[in-house]
Amino acid sequence: MNGAIALDRIRIVLSRTSHPGNIGAAARAMKTMGLSRLYLVDPACFPDPVADARASGAGDLLANARVVGSLEEALEGTVLSAAVTARRRERSVAVRGAREAAPELVAFAGQGEVALVFGTETSGLTNEDVALCSMPVSIPANPAFSSLNLGAAVQLLCYELRMAALSPPPPAEPLPDLASFDEIEGFHRHLQEAMTVSGFYDPANPKRLLQRIRRLFGRIRLEKEEVNILRGIISAFERKAD
Amino acid sequence: MNGAIALDRIRIVLSRTSHPGNIGAAARAMKTMGLSRLYLVDPACFPDPVADARASGAGDLLANARVVGSLEEALEGTVLSAAVTARRRERSVAVRGAREAAPELVAFAGQGEVALVFGTETSGLTNEDVALCSMPVSIPANPAFSSLNLGAAVQLLCYELRMAALSPPPPAEPLPDLASFDEIEGFHRHLQEAMTVSGFYDPANPKRLLQRIRRLFGRIRLEKEEVNILRGIISAFERKAD
Repeated sequence: MNGAIALDRIRIVLSRTSHPGNIGAAARAMKTMGLSRLYLVDPACFPDPVADARASGAGDLLANARVVGSLEEALEGTVLSAAVTARRRERSVAVRGAREAAPELVAFAGQGEVALVFGTETSGLTNEDVALCSMPVSIPANPAFSSLNLGAAVQLLCYELRMAALSPPPPAEPLPDLASFDEIEGFHRHLQEAMTVSGFYDPANPKRLLQRIRRLFGRIRLEKEEVNILRGIISAFERKAD
Repeated sequence: MNGAIALDRIRIVLSRTSHPGNIGAAARAMKTMGLSRLYLVDPACFPDPVADARASGAGDLLANARVVGSLEEALEGTVLSAAVTARRRERSVAVRGAREAAPELVAFAGQGEVALVFGTETSGLTNEDVALCSMPVSIPANPAFSSLNLGAAVQLLCYELRMAALSPPPPAEPLPDLASFDEIEGFHRHLQEAMTVSGFYDPANPKRLLQRIRRLFGRIRLEKEEVNILRGIISAFERKAD
C-alpha cells in the first residue's frame, strides 16, 4: 500500500486532554508528518482559541476532529490500536518501543483503521484504557526524567509512523554538476606546478603530499564551477609571484 | 564510549529564538532524552517565567544554559556541528536526514564536543549560519506542511541522538582526527587574506566567492593534517609573492 494512504488510516486519539494548547500542538505535529485524523475523548476545553493558535496552520485538523465521549467510541471500527504509555504496567505485556511498533501499525493500516492513543498530561492512560488497546507502546526516554510533553510525544510517534510508511525515502536532491575526470586532473596538475614553483612541493623528494591532497579533494567531489574557482585562486597567486 | 557520556557532549544551540516558551519546551525535550547542554544565541526573552513554566521539571537546564552573542561563540571548541534546516538550500550540500545523521554525531562526540543548531521559529537559520556548521540535517516531513514547532524539532533530534547513543552500531572505520572549528576558521581567514593580497578576492565587491569556498570545503570534514597542508600551500605562495 502507498505510504501516504497508510498514514491517512491512522487515528491519533487524545484521551481527556487538560490543556487545549496541547491539542493544537498535537494537530500541528500530526500534519507535519502527514497524518490527519484526530479524535478527542472528552477534552477539558475544545474548541478553544489556544488550541487554534498552537495548531498554527493545522487548523483544518482541529476543524475535522471527532469529539467523542469514551475511548470505546474512538476505537470503533479499528483493526488495531496502540496505547502510548510511559509507565511500566503491572501485567507483563511486552511493551514495544515506538520504532519497533511503527512498522507494525503501518502494516495493519493496510487492513483497516488503526489508532494510536495518548492519555492525559499528568497521569497518562488508566489501566482500563490500556486494556482496551491491542498493545502498549512506549517512547524510550531518560529513566530519571521521562515525562514528555503531550505534543512532543505525538510528534515523535507520528514521525516514526511516517518513517515506517515512507521508507525507503525517494532520493531528495537533484544531482550537482560534477567536474569531469579531465577537469579534476587539470586542477591537480595546475596545483602541483604552482606548489613546485613556490617551493612547497619538491618533485625530487615527493613523500605523501600529493596523495594527501588527492584524498582531500577526492572526498569533496568537486563541481565544475568549483574547479574554476580553485584554478582562479592558483592563477592569481602565480601572477602575484611573477 | 558510553552512550550517556556521548549525549553529555552534545550541545543544543538555539539561535535567536523569539518565544521563551519554545526555549522551555526545548529544555524539557532535551532532558527527557538525557541531553543537558543548552546554548542560546541572542534569545529575544531569557530568562523568562514562560520558559520556566514550559520547562516543567527541566529548570536545571535553563539555569545552566549558556547565553552567547553569536553562533561562532556557541560553536567554539566543537569538533562537529550540524545545522537543522527544513529549507532546500540553493546549491545543496547533501542534506542528511535526522536518522542518518544521529549516529555520526554520536560517534564524533567521542572525539570532543558536538553541536546541533536550530534557527528561529519563523525563518530558521540563515545561509551564513548553515555555512558555519559542518553539515545540514533535516527532519523528513510532509512536503505540504513541513513547519515543525521548534520544541518538537528539538524533541525529535534528541530522540534520534538517544536512540543512536544507546544502540551504537559498531564503528566501521577508525574516526579521522578532525580539525576543530577554530582551526577551520583560521584556515578560511588565512585563505581570504591571501586571496585579497593576490587580487583574486576584492573585499569591497565580495559577491558569493567566500560562500562558494565555504560550501566546497564544508562538504567534507577537514582533518587537522589537511588544514596544515592547505595552510602550508598558502604560506608558500605568500612567501614566493613577497
